[in-house]
Amino acid sequence: MSKLTGKMKNAVVLLSGGVDSTTILHYVRKKLGIRRVYALSFLYGQKHFRELAMAKWQAKAVNVAEHRVIDLSFFGELIAGSSALTDKSISVPDLKKLEKSQKRQPPTYVPNRNMVFIALAAAYAEAKGVQDVFYGAQAQDEYGYWDCTVDFVRKINDVLRLNRCKAIRVNAPFAGLCKTAVVKTGLELGVDYTHTWSCYCGGKKPCGTCPSCVEREKAFLVLKGE
Amino acid sequence: MSKLTGKMKNAVVLLSGGVDSTTILHYVRKKLGIRRVYALSFLYGQKHFRELAMAKWQAKAVNVAEHRVIDLSFFGELIAGSSALTDKSISVPDLKKLEKSQKRQPPTYVPNRNMVFIALAAAYAEAKGVQDVFYGAQAQDEYGYWDCTVDFVRKINDVLRLNRCKAIRVNAPFAGLCKTAVVKTGLELGVDYTHTWSCYCGGKKPCGTCPSCVEREKAFLVLKGE
Repeated sequence: MSKLTGKMKNAVVLLSGGVDSTTILHYVRKKLGIRRVYALSFLYGQKHFRELAMAKWQAKAVNVAEHRVIDLSFFGELIAGSSALTDKSISVPDLKKLEKSQKRQPPTYVPNRNMVFIALAAAYAEAKGVQDVFYGAQAQDEYGYWDCTVDFVRKINDVLRLNRCKAIRVNAPFAGLCKTAVVKTGLELGVDYTHTWSCYCGGKKPCGTCPSCVEREKAFLVLKGE
Repeated sequence: MSKLTGKMKNAVVLLSGGVDSTTILHYVRKKLGIRRVYALSFLYGQKHFRELAMAKWQAKAVNVAEHRVIDLSFFGELIAGSSALTDKSISVPDLKKLEKSQKRQPPTYVPNRNMVFIALAAAYAEAKGVQDVFYGAQAQDEYGYWDCTVDFVRKINDVLRLNRCKAIRVNAPFAGLCKTAVVKTGLELGVDYTHTWSCYCGGKKPCGTCPSCVEREKAFLVLKGE
């Protein structure tokens, strides 16, 4: 991470309003000291659209230069039948009930969503004359997504590096770190996690049992030493 | 190209309504004999939105299983000030007037548009249970786009191959071929090119002088032996 410090003047941050991307946002502003931050969020048919209110709150808290919420509402319908995060007919599973075989690609996986978001963020950055995009991928403990891995980020950069004039760089300083390490970093930076949203289920209150709720709670418990 | 023949039952085709993607569409249906074709087009703020009517005509002509036109109207605004294809304040240049230095990334380049389209096509394919996406990139003679190259397609596939369950494959059988070769293939397949649109300028009639008009005309003239 150290090689990133003090070199950048501006950046685009992918901001969902969850724990990881919120931590990245604060990290970019406070730790890296980047002055002009352009935050990008997406309404993509997710059941847990409540995360976007948190994204707005956090973007304001760190005084971003711009926060755009892009309407990709069509996306849920485009990928109909494929993800528990966007399809009402597919239940979000409890982490405990996830079969071993599903852990490598659980029902909460959203087909190629992350490449879509990164591609749009890179387009936005390139047009703005910004070189760096920040992406809050982190290592998942219990189950995993191929598009949150260190290798994914490396290969996305292999594509973007082909740009002959303004090659965009995707930075994922937390990729490979566990959620506990991410939250620890955030707490040190003074992140107010009460204004983040993790639950996938779409209810007004967090369910407490979906993979995202469980991992969130576990990270905080570990830090409390429980 | 031969290795593609006769193995696929379905495919997603990126269809702009221009010469190259229209040829791919016919190639996929008639040469490869793929039965279920899902065509995908985008309204992304392009001045030459007339191409979409051509896309619809061609999709119908080859009897696709589905043709979706996705509304990405926000995109032109997201990349404001960066492309002659989407920004009213930037003129589409005549090919003759393009500076040598611009030929590697001319004003008609649209920041990262092609990765956005491919990412969405891959998401759609993955959700549909389709393995193959077809992309009508071809070698540009006079000027070039980094995201139409053989290397770009190869590296995009390096990313997608990381998918642990349903890795999507992007096929660009015309990448590396000149437009004349593409049109020759299309004519052999009976493509009606009067129902394609190339001009970038946004007028009701083709301007005849923009890079896209000139290259189109040149391809047909070469085939006529003029």
